[in-house]
Amino acid sequence: MQHNSYFEGKVQSLAVNVPEGRATVGVIEPGSYTFGTDSEEHMTIVAGSARVKLPGDDWQSFGKGETFIVPPKSSFDIEAAADVAYICYYISPS
Amino acid sequence: MQHNSYFEGKVQSLAVNVPEGRATVGVIEPGSYTFGTDSEEHMTIVAGSARVKLPGDDWQSFGKGETFIVPPKSSFDIEAAADVAYICYYISPS
Repeated sequence: MQHNSYFEGKVQSLAVNVPEGRATVGVIEPGSYTFGTDSEEHMTIVAGSARVKLPGDDWQSFGKGETFIVPPKSSFDIEAAADVAYICYYISPS
Repeated sequence: MQHNSYFEGKVQSLAVNVPEGRATVGVIEPGSYTFGTDSEEHMTIVAGSARVKLPGDDWQSFGKGETFIVPPKSSFDIEAAADVAYICYYISPS
């Protein structure tokens, strides 16, 4: 199983292959981060909440069970005031 | 952030502090496992599905979004035919 660590360990994730395809489950510790995307990503908040700025959008808050979609070859900003757990699905181009 | 690894890395988890309290998000690779509990645990399947045998119960299947509760100071068996992602909440005695 692949274990990923970013931003000096403040963001970590575990790879998981699920019916929906390739994904990671992970934890974001308090802070502000920018993530680049290769494929389209569907991020669902599993626990906690975060403020997210998608390309061309204003800041929005997402809580438990809510999903945001990040276009491929782009990036998004995310701010966590407390720990956040998420699952990220990587969507292959159809 | 604490990263836990069990059964030669076939089960891994990340600690997260969320509004509900102390939790871990993790991945279970295909296989059969037995986990002991200290405090009561509420396990929610985030992706995939698993067969679970709780103390004194028959085997049951749990899928995405479904939760099972494991009593404190006990154990449960879990069988995964494919990868499973979960969040486990550790419930402090009230």
